[in-house]
Amino acid sequence: MLTKRDVYVPLDVPYELEEEYVENFLSITRSTGRVMLFAGDQKIEHLNSDFYGTNISLDDSDPEHLFMIAKHGTIGAFATQLGLIARYGRDYKEIPYVVKLNSKTNLYKGEPYSEILSDVSEVMEFKRNSRLRILGVGYTIYLGSQHEYKMLSIASRVIREAHKNGLIAIVWIYPRGRYIKNEKTPEIIAGATGVAVSLGADFVKVNYPFAYGKDRKEAFKQAIRAAGRTGVICAGGSAVDVWQFLKTLHDQLNAGSRGNATGRNIHQRPFEEAVRLTEAISALVYGNRNVEEAYAVYEGRARFKL
Amino acid sequence: MLTKRDVYVPLDVPYELEEEYVENFLSITRSTGRVMLFAGDQKIEHLNSDFYGTNISLDDSDPEHLFMIAKHGTIGAFATQLGLIARYGRDYKEIPYVVKLNSKTNLYKGEPYSEILSDVSEVMEFKRNSRLRILGVGYTIYLGSQHEYKMLSIASRVIREAHKNGLIAIVWIYPRGRYIKNEKTPEIIAGATGVAVSLGADFVKVNYPFAYGKDRKEAFKQAIRAAGRTGVICAGGSAVDVWQFLKTLHDQLNAGSRGNATGRNIHQRPFEEAVRLTEAISALVYGNRNVEEAYAVYEGRARFKL
Amino acid sequence: MLTKRDVYVPLDVPYELEEEYVENFLSITRSTGRVMLFAGDQKIEHLNSDFYGTNISLDDSDPEHLFMIAKHGTIGAFATQLGLIARYGRDYKEIPYVVKLNSKTNLYKGEPYSEILSDVSEVMEFKRNSRLRILGVGYTIYLGSQHEYKMLSIASRVIREAHKNGLIAIVWIYPRGRYIKNEKTPEIIAGATGVAVSLGADFVKVNYPFAYGKDRKEAFKQAIRAAGRTGVICAGGSAVDVWQFLKTLHDQLNAGSRGNATGRNIHQRPFEEAVRLTEAISALVYGNRNVEEAYAVYEGRARFKL
Amino acid sequence: MLTKRDVYVPLDVPYELEEEYVENFLSITRSTGRVMLFAGDQKIEHLNSDFYGTNISLDDSDPEHLFMIAKHGTIGAFATQLGLIARYGRDYKEIPYVVKLNSKTNLYKGEPYSEILSDVSEVMEFKRNSRLRILGVGYTIYLGSQHEYKMLSIASRVIREAHKNGLIAIVWIYPRGRYIKNEKTPEIIAGATGVAVSLGADFVKVNYPFAYGKDRKEAFKQAIRAAGRTGVICAGGSAVDVWQFLKTLHDQLNAGSRGNATGRNIHQRPFEEAVRLTEAISALVYGNRNVEEAYAVYEGRARFKL
Amino acid sequence: MLTKRDVYVPLDVPYELEEEYVENFLSITRSTGRVMLFAGDQKIEHLNSDFYGTNISLDDSDPEHLFMIAKHGTIGAFATQLGLIARYGRDYKEIPYVVKLNSKTNLYKGEPYSEILSDVSEVMEFKRNSRLRILGVGYTIYLGSQHEYKMLSIASRVIREAHKNGLIAIVWIYPRGRYIKNEKTPEIIAGATGVAVSLGADFVKVNYPFAYGKDRKEAFKQAIRAAGRTGVICAGGSAVDVWQFLKTLHDQLNAGSRGNATGRNIHQRPFEEAVRLTEAISALVYGNRNVEEAYAVYEGRARFKL
Repeated sequence: MLTKRDVYVPLDVPYELEEEYVENFLSITRSTGRVMLFAGDQKIEHLNSDFYGTNISLDDSDPEHLFMIAKHGTIGAFATQLGLIARYGRDYKEIPYVVKLNSKTNLYKGEPYSEILSDVSEVMEFKRNSRLRILGVGYTIYLGSQHEYKMLSIASRVIREAHKNGLIAIVWIYPRGRYIKNEKTPEIIAGATGVAVSLGADFVKVNYPFAYGKDRKEAFKQAIRAAGRTGVICAGGSAVDVWQFLKTLHDQLNAGSRGNATGRNIHQRPFEEAVRLTEAISALVYGNRNVEEAYAVYEGRARFKL
Repeated sequence: MLTKRDVYVPLDVPYELEEEYVENFLSITRSTGRVMLFAGDQKIEHLNSDFYGTNISLDDSDPEHLFMIAKHGTIGAFATQLGLIARYGRDYKEIPYVVKLNSKTNLYKGEPYSEILSDVSEVMEFKRNSRLRILGVGYTIYLGSQHEYKMLSIASRVIREAHKNGLIAIVWIYPRGRYIKNEKTPEIIAGATGVAVSLGADFVKVNYPFAYGKDRKEAFKQAIRAAGRTGVICAGGSAVDVWQFLKTLHDQLNAGSRGNATGRNIHQRPFEEAVRLTEAISALVYGNRNVEEAYAVYEGRARFKL
Repeated sequence: MLTKRDVYVPLDVPYELEEEYVENFLSITRSTGRVMLFAGDQKIEHLNSDFYGTNISLDDSDPEHLFMIAKHGTIGAFATQLGLIARYGRDYKEIPYVVKLNSKTNLYKGEPYSEILSDVSEVMEFKRNSRLRILGVGYTIYLGSQHEYKMLSIASRVIREAHKNGLIAIVWIYPRGRYIKNEKTPEIIAGATGVAVSLGADFVKVNYPFAYGKDRKEAFKQAIRAAGRTGVICAGGSAVDVWQFLKTLHDQLNAGSRGNATGRNIHQRPFEEAVRLTEAISALVYGNRNVEEAYAVYEGRARFKL
Repeated sequence: MLTKRDVYVPLDVPYELEEEYVENFLSITRSTGRVMLFAGDQKIEHLNSDFYGTNISLDDSDPEHLFMIAKHGTIGAFATQLGLIARYGRDYKEIPYVVKLNSKTNLYKGEPYSEILSDVSEVMEFKRNSRLRILGVGYTIYLGSQHEYKMLSIASRVIREAHKNGLIAIVWIYPRGRYIKNEKTPEIIAGATGVAVSLGADFVKVNYPFAYGKDRKEAFKQAIRAAGRTGVICAGGSAVDVWQFLKTLHDQLNAGSRGNATGRNIHQRPFEEAVRLTEAISALVYGNRNVEEAYAVYEGRARFKL
Repeated sequence: MLTKRDVYVPLDVPYELEEEYVENFLSITRSTGRVMLFAGDQKIEHLNSDFYGTNISLDDSDPEHLFMIAKHGTIGAFATQLGLIARYGRDYKEIPYVVKLNSKTNLYKGEPYSEILSDVSEVMEFKRNSRLRILGVGYTIYLGSQHEYKMLSIASRVIREAHKNGLIAIVWIYPRGRYIKNEKTPEIIAGATGVAVSLGADFVKVNYPFAYGKDRKEAFKQAIRAAGRTGVICAGGSAVDVWQFLKTLHDQLNAGSRGNATGRNIHQRPFEEAVRLTEAISALVYGNRNVEEAYAVYEGRARFKL
């Protein structure tokens, strides 16, 4: 278990907010240095197709489902837009939140750009007014897009502003745009995590690298090394077989991953199952359990609470 | 009837303005949670073709017609641009207003974008100076446009600023642009309402979903579920047969719609008929009457006043 | 004759500036509600071709000609750019001015956009410093242009700021751009005047509608009705036969026009003739004279002074 | 010789800065109303090709050459970028400077746009800190460019801000861009000078008009008339024969030109010759000498000092 | 050795910060007027390909490698992004830093533009909070790009702001974009350094000029002359043979270069070798040693410490 003294406080955190930063870091990582992020920004990112359809529980068609899981499950933080938090937060004050600052839909197919919906100062004003447990902020960068320059610049400012307010700063980096042929090659994923540390992020969420004929875990290790003091967390993706999902996550953690960010794989399930899956993931991320133990939690044969 | 305690106050409303927000919410919904919006922003949106021509009453060619209906009819609020309100409001102080913040004409056919004409701070300054009954603001988003990112960002800020001032925030969402093949599919309408709740809007105005071979009411229910705590209201559209119009509205309310926004269907009629139609709509929305009763109001065989 | 009590003060004029607004309105309309605008922004809009060439008096090649006419003629206001006023105004303090806020040349042929050269706060600072009689401001919108959204937004703010400072707000609206096939159809002109009232302008300058086989005066009446409480004034255009020009203006006034804005038709003439033409126009606009009487003024057989 | 009372002070100069403006005007015009501008912004505008190559003195390859000429020659002001002044000004405090606010290189061939490098407030802060003799500012407009609207707007603000600080405002206007077929026609040059006076500039630098078969001097007179109270000065251009150069300048002054702006023709020569050429030009502009007398100065047979 | 009195303080440094500027200048140049810059911004600029792969030491795959070299090597300053400094600086407080303000990746292939990640005011706030030894800032300009105008403008402001805070200002200039056929011709490199002095930079980093059949050293001398009082430093480039590298650097210094900026050539080596190479480079730049002496340092047969 990490203690306050173990947490590296970035130098852009002002002296008087170092304790706040440390507390937020220990909260979101449950004093492990790793984070289990319940990602719930898809109502803008993917519209309703993540929430309604074949193989999706009807529970998921109501946005409150997300808050129910976040409240009753075992997570590091629930990441979603400020607007959604504003509409439900009064009834879900115990949830630890990460505010996802920017979002776009998947309708427009040109060069990707995602604009800030709420900046850090708005988040802080909201935090003071609402007294919610907002631990950090998230921001997405589409590396390689024609609009990359705006996102790199804004990400840099977001991270700086987050740290100035003692918040944890997480960047999502997806290489996209007309010049990106394959967004998951080991080179490009390691490039992305290197960008994240150069921007000063605490954590970076990337896709698990993939290239035909290459060892994913070795490729991932390189990305983790490239990130240096920035923790790399993997996107949960769209896989649905739970055993395979937990196995992959376990591999990633073994490779040095500092956690994961999972959305659809959790919230597309019925409430009880979704809660158990958050526990299973947390058993790996926070509890250092093995895959069998985590799977037992998922199946309800054991529990994992923090 | 809703009481003050029944109103969910979003967490971005500051504590000291909660009462103001609740009063505005109860006013615009007539303590029902539903809203009947008289939409009158078409002089910019559609130029003069909504106000003059075949099957349009000559009354409608003078913009004061809108204010006369809003004053003498039965509505939740009259939504139009600040500039128009400024030119007539001195003589129409009793009307409850929603200021439509952005508008564009239909002349330019490229990727749609509608810019803010007056922001929330201008609205508030105007409200203080004019002492008009401004209950909320409206903002249009063209989802899927190349300019979506600007509109999502501004909408988010508009909603936040509205709530900070105790105002009701309504978004109009129309999926448009070169990548939108069919803007009324159930998937896209449910996507739109999900975006609205993620932005934190109080109400979202969308088109009634339509797809060949699908049940509109079931599709609409899905959109309503996707919106969660954001009320979905339907655009009145261009239909002119009143019985059919009232019937559809009744269906929508049964499906869980939280009201409607109608413009042309009302103001293209002569003054007296237009007033009766506002009463008929309000009989459904606010009075929970059935279609026959509402139609009787429209035909002048009964009245509906609040 | 209008008295102070007859002037409708828009609600975006602050209480303490209502008297200032009323005085400016009565000045520019000479207490008639109508305005005779001497438009002199063409040195940017049309470069030198309006000032030098065949059938243009050599007087017109010197910009001071404009100020001489404005001083010695009979006009409601002289509309031109702030920069030009700054260079001559010290010697022409008695002229009532309207500052034309935006201008562009006719060299670039792409989608039209005209940027603010001086905003309302600059105008007010200049007015206080110079003590000139600045009664209002003007702003041009190219409706239908790809850049329409910027111009609608800025126009809205210009009108609001003008009113906040007690100034009269006039918009010039010309439908232009690749999607505009015919910028003078009755529908589009009535659309333009409807936009103006929705923005809250005091006056809107449009071209006299024209469509093959349609009655211009009837078409114009519709545009005037669409404008409601915003006064419609017609551009003088390039016609040069004075009798025809005065006849058309008389028709427009009969149709309900609230005045006109004429530039080239006046300043391309020698000084004395130009002065007489301003008197002739004012005889119609302000003096309610008939065409014959006005023409006599133009020919110097009578005078019209206010 | 002009006295303080002869100087027209534009009305955008605040009362308390009128004396400052008058002093700057008399300094830069050496109390003649005319200006001899030593233009030295080409290290950005033309890169090194103006400073090194065939027929260019090796003296010119060191930027200090410009300052040496400006110090020891006879000029109204030396116009260059603030950055360059900052690097040499400590050793050249006696030079009268005009800060060229915007510059671009000639590498990019698309629609021309030149951005502000230092705005007027930066110039004033620099002037206060450095105590240099900064008399005015310069700004380039590419009329007809797709970006014309930005440059017109910024030019207008630059002139206003300059005058608010008592500085002289000079605009360089070059018609350029895909729609400009011939940037030196009499019509377009007279258009350009008309734009300058409409913006309120004190001086405008344009190219000497040229069109096959037309009298340049007559064409130029028209441009001078179109400029009214704004002084027209001619670009020196690339001509190298000194007698012809001085002869043309003399013609221009006779036509009513208010001076010239010369760069390459001066600084591409060895130091001593360059100094003599500044004297020769000033002999025409400030001394009203004839071409023979000026040429004698250039050849060192006479001197012209102020 | 330079003393405080030998340092030219640009006139945009305020009087009260002149001493600060002089100290920073003497620190970064080790009182020689020359600078050895360890450039480490490639994790964004080149992604991971500079840090992992054939012929690259595995040491380089961890970003801390850069800080280790900067701490234990002999350098003038380590140039990298603020975010990276924030994540490691607490453990590397003795390193002299230059904050690289803007960066972009090499993924997007359109017209190059690199946006500010942290501006000078953020750097100063960070410097005060962190108490790190930040001596200056760096900014990259892609001359000839469609976006050149933004970069020239921002560079000018960055240099001004840096000087206002007593910091050293360094610009990286690379001619790039569709109109640049050959970015290393003598003409274009001398143009670039002339731009730098016109912007007022203290140092400019350019590529060593190259053109088939031309003497590189002579070409470089011209670039150095064109830069006047701005020091020219050469990019280290991708060459890997150390003897050749040191030989070229020695040539450049002989030609009048004021130092160099090397990244990959240093950090792609194992830690000990990288440290020795920094000493070897500094032996040339700061120690005026010859190539043989410097090479001995590289091979560990001698040391060079300051």
